[in-house]
Amino acid sequence: MDDKILMAHGNGGELMGSLINKLIIEILGKDSVQLDDSAIVGPEEGKIVFTTDTYTITPIFFEGGDIGKLAVNGTVNDLAVMGAEPKYLSCGLILEEGLDMSEFEKILYSMKKAADYAEVRIVTGDTKVVERGSADKIFINTSGIGFQNNYSFRNEIKSGDVVIVNGTIGDHGISIMAERNGLSFSKGLSSDSAPLNKMLMSLGREYGDHIKFVRDATRGGIASVLNEVAGDRDFSIKLIEDYLPIKNEVRGVCDILGLDPLYAANEGKVILIVSKETADDIVESMRKFPEGELSKVIGCVDSNYFGKVYIETYVKGHRILPLLQEDQLPRIC
Amino acid sequence: MDDKILMAHGNGGELMGSLINKLIIEILGKDSVQLDDSAIVGPEEGKIVFTTDTYTITPIFFEGGDIGKLAVNGTVNDLAVMGAEPKYLSCGLILEEGLDMSEFEKILYSMKKAADYAEVRIVTGDTKVVERGSADKIFINTSGIGFQNNYSFRNEIKSGDVVIVNGTIGDHGISIMAERNGLSFSKGLSSDSAPLNKMLMSLGREYGDHIKFVRDATRGGIASVLNEVAGDRDFSIKLIEDYLPIKNEVRGVCDILGLDPLYAANEGKVILIVSKETADDIVESMRKFPEGELSKVIGCVDSNYFGKVYIETYVKGHRILPLLQEDQLPRIC
Repeated sequence: MDDKILMAHGNGGELMGSLINKLIIEILGKDSVQLDDSAIVGPEEGKIVFTTDTYTITPIFFEGGDIGKLAVNGTVNDLAVMGAEPKYLSCGLILEEGLDMSEFEKILYSMKKAADYAEVRIVTGDTKVVERGSADKIFINTSGIGFQNNYSFRNEIKSGDVVIVNGTIGDHGISIMAERNGLSFSKGLSSDSAPLNKMLMSLGREYGDHIKFVRDATRGGIASVLNEVAGDRDFSIKLIEDYLPIKNEVRGVCDILGLDPLYAANEGKVILIVSKETADDIVESMRKFPEGELSKVIGCVDSNYFGKVYIETYVKGHRILPLLQEDQLPRIC
Repeated sequence: MDDKILMAHGNGGELMGSLINKLIIEILGKDSVQLDDSAIVGPEEGKIVFTTDTYTITPIFFEGGDIGKLAVNGTVNDLAVMGAEPKYLSCGLILEEGLDMSEFEKILYSMKKAADYAEVRIVTGDTKVVERGSADKIFINTSGIGFQNNYSFRNEIKSGDVVIVNGTIGDHGISIMAERNGLSFSKGLSSDSAPLNKMLMSLGREYGDHIKFVRDATRGGIASVLNEVAGDRDFSIKLIEDYLPIKNEVRGVCDILGLDPLYAANEGKVILIVSKETADDIVESMRKFPEGELSKVIGCVDSNYFGKVYIETYVKGHRILPLLQEDQLPRIC
């Protein structure tokens, strides 16, 4: 096995055959390399939910995961937050000439492990190799198909509803920024990349239409997700500063680098908006899952403002959380 | 509107919102930007066929098309050659900081036009921006979903079957290589990028199981596709040199650059292997479509060799066409 990716690995000929056959098939299984042009995966019951996401994160390995784990969990979560059961993923790779074969191999193993853990199958794939300097090591696109049956996580939001998060905020974005800035003293910092489908499917079955909205808080963080929800609507969303679960290590790095954890990417966190009467039960149900152990209520929907997200501070002041304008965290996923 | 892509266009905040809202929605329609995390597209009848392909071609604009047209048609064709009706595409974009906004806009229009022509919908998308030097202008992943009903284009191939192609060979790969090498005198050269779904769906309905195999001859050309078919099988595939439709301009560039059109990428050509008794009718049916006007028989399946593809030359000699080994045409799609 060569120890670097070569341009010839991408040309559809024998060297590519060897890369594909020996490595990708061995690790991801033969479906993943599209020996035929496409995968046949159905029929299945329910509405089809279809999503795509491209991962360009740097560095490609980081505390708590790598680009491969992120690419699988991210797309699994994009389906799960729609109330769909994620089933099939594609894997579109762009490899930069010169990428270490051992790094590539680690990423493939990581994708396989994440797919197995989330119980999804990588059924089709494509690999392109570009010259040194035309990409940055590896970019991964994962598209996904899931099936939505009885719940959609999209119901009317109204004043009085409750906002829940399944754990600490900003871990992914802030730990990546710490690594990039050489803040290696920041022990305890780690990406939160995790698949949320099992927890969300269980909640959907148990609470159905009481769950008004679910979204994973990736790029732009929970402030951006909530702004998308509230924008142009006749309600506001209040977060209570005192309730926000933020690791001390995350706060520390934010202080040093001038970042705000509310705008930092998460890769294993969802925001749920649920009816008030079920909120406590939902939090309790979520805590039974490893991805939800630290679930808690962090705010509510009210009518203090129109279409705004705001924070009630420790001293009971109000601070509006605007839509992000500047480029805080590029290539964070 | 800014005239260059900036890093901030990729951060999930307001500038990104403006790029997305003003440009992508305007051109591709609002489904394509994944305002929600995923698209809901079903349920539909039939087996689900799922495919993915990433496009890294350089140059991004070329005679006969651009990377956007290629990305739509290529994925449409990957579904169609499986006997599926292509319905839904995703669009995953990686933009390099500094890309001209006007070029980006042209590519989006081109995707929209190709999708409309092929009668598929771009229903979900994702956009990432990376720093200058971390990509090469634009890479596009399109994944696709289609539905297979009554024919699969995968039936037992046997000696006596006939090999058909729907037009001239090597146009895409050779015209790109001519452009890259500044052979601008090569008028008449143009990529053959085209959607083949309508022609193939019509053939499937009319001829069903008489069609044993269909594959678009992209990277690696028709020689590579046929090697995949014949490899390790108990038959050989004979191409008759005299029958091969190759433009004079393509031959000319091949002579100058030392390329072989049989190994050059096509983006609107399929190889069909069909039963002998229907071959003439199938060719006639194909010629009714603009994408099949120049369809013809180019060879047959026989038992002269085991698992080989060979060419019967003008002087009736045999020349084996091996699996491609070297990197003939990088970043051709």
